[in-house]
Amino acid sequence: MTQELALGIDIGGTNTSFGIVDRRGKISAQGTMPTTGYPKVEDYIAALAAAVAPLLAEAGKENIVACGAGAPNGNFFTGEIAFAPNLPWKGVIPMSKLMSESFGLPVTLTNDANAAAIGEMMYGAAKGMKDFIMVTLGTGVGSGFVANGNLIYGHDGFAGELGHITAERNGRKCGCGRYGCLETYASATGIVRTAHEWMEQSDDATTLRKKGAALTARNIQDAAQEKDAMALELYHYTGKILGQTLADMVAITSPEAIIFFGGLAHAGPMLFDHVNRYMEANLLHIFQNKVKMLQSALPDADAAILGASALVW
Amino acid sequence: MTQELALGIDIGGTNTSFGIVDRRGKISAQGTMPTTGYPKVEDYIAALAAAVAPLLAEAGKENIVACGAGAPNGNFFTGEIAFAPNLPWKGVIPMSKLMSESFGLPVTLTNDANAAAIGEMMYGAAKGMKDFIMVTLGTGVGSGFVANGNLIYGHDGFAGELGHITAERNGRKCGCGRYGCLETYASATGIVRTAHEWMEQSDDATTLRKKGAALTARNIQDAAQEKDAMALELYHYTGKILGQTLADMVAITSPEAIIFFGGLAHAGPMLFDHVNRYMEANLLHIFQNKVKMLQSALPDADAAILGASALVW
Repeated sequence: MTQELALGIDIGGTNTSFGIVDRRGKISAQGTMPTTGYPKVEDYIAALAAAVAPLLAEAGKENIVACGAGAPNGNFFTGEIAFAPNLPWKGVIPMSKLMSESFGLPVTLTNDANAAAIGEMMYGAAKGMKDFIMVTLGTGVGSGFVANGNLIYGHDGFAGELGHITAERNGRKCGCGRYGCLETYASATGIVRTAHEWMEQSDDATTLRKKGAALTARNIQDAAQEKDAMALELYHYTGKILGQTLADMVAITSPEAIIFFGGLAHAGPMLFDHVNRYMEANLLHIFQNKVKMLQSALPDADAAILGASALVW
Repeated sequence: MTQELALGIDIGGTNTSFGIVDRRGKISAQGTMPTTGYPKVEDYIAALAAAVAPLLAEAGKENIVACGAGAPNGNFFTGEIAFAPNLPWKGVIPMSKLMSESFGLPVTLTNDANAAAIGEMMYGAAKGMKDFIMVTLGTGVGSGFVANGNLIYGHDGFAGELGHITAERNGRKCGCGRYGCLETYASATGIVRTAHEWMEQSDDATTLRKKGAALTARNIQDAAQEKDAMALELYHYTGKILGQTLADMVAITSPEAIIFFGGLAHAGPMLFDHVNRYMEANLLHIFQNKVKMLQSALPDADAAILGASALVW
């Protein structure tokens, strides 16, 4: 019996995950390999093809309709990855073309946050929704804006850069060269940056200080769960900046829900009670008490593969 | 010979304009009446029906397919006007239903900026564009965001409130009850407010001061054309705030163009050279030197009627 299957690939800054997925979102086989260690993208593609080959053979190559891939700075229109600060390859990489030639499959590429939005729409928390915002809170802040049931790609495929909204005028220096971008505050790296700034300015002994330079968003979460005052205040501060910015996004797209995914989103109500409170306080009255704040309904390990594969359907 | 015609109605804060329009945007007859002076909306509807009746009779009622109407706070999904601060009727007005019953025509309602966006897309500066932002700079700031060729209405029809983006945290008090909204700075009333603030703080004799409380955006334009220093600086300040905010909007929707309409937009390059410069300076590099800044291509007097009528097609 023939089936329709998709190959889903998530190209992350550290690891690349891939899997064989059916239309209902069932992953029949999956694997992972490092993204780093291949200075030349051709070598990365060759290694990825070798890693994926056994999965394709087992599923039956003739059953694979196409490949969907998500990557930081991936462009849906051009199939290129352009100037991705968190990937090893510089400049503009014709990723979709390279993968398609290597795998012998049509390849659709988009950025990782857009892929996550499609995944949530097909299999997760946004099922049945036509207007929502997907926000990924990881190393940076990514986003996918869905309106009228379609992703907003913009005229050139680059729309959805929530992470580079100016949250604080003349604020922190961002990796993009500008100042005050949301992701310098409201990402896993942003909250750690806030923690280091605060610890420089205070002599309070906190559980966070013991971590030194190795402090992570996860450490902050653990400390907050143990009621560490600075850790709790870090969520307050971060939630305020994120909530204020989201209020502006609601004014533009009036979404049914905002769905959060990524490392920092694991903080749960310790962070999102603040996000929600500051968002509501900054909303125009016609938007108040309407926008659902949701966590991704997809398991972390599978979400990226599901989102990427969903591009195929 | 039968024709397909639309009745276009623009309900403004001061006047209501209406006209008979064909599919190509040709206005065969038009008129205007005051919006104010009817404390009860039923009386307004009766007066409007009486004013429109001769146009419908002349065009041949059987040729009129439907009515499209634009109004501040008009909701495309519900046909209601909800809490419009610039209209005489308070609360929620079922405008589409009232008009439809009175005229005996199907009525489609949306807000005035969305109507303007549709008008530009069909007949004006956005012909052939699928991704653009329409910005109306009048008494307030209105906007219509178009993505993938469709207006972004949001889940409830209230999307596109660019005027209520927070441009300055803890800034000026806005009519909506919040602080720092874009329209308190970058509208015809906003720039006059800036002028009054500056004149309170300075004893410089300027041509603006002579206008006193009667100062208008038009006076500022006239003074700037005569190289009045404060008037020119008012455009600089206003352009900076508008440009910075638009940079954030580009990051979200990556439009091909931003199209400006309304009283303040008549300032032309005196204002928009600043808007463009500050927008570009605040854009993420992938968006730089790509977004067209355009003026509405529709004649002022006709644009609102054309936009409203375009809802019908």
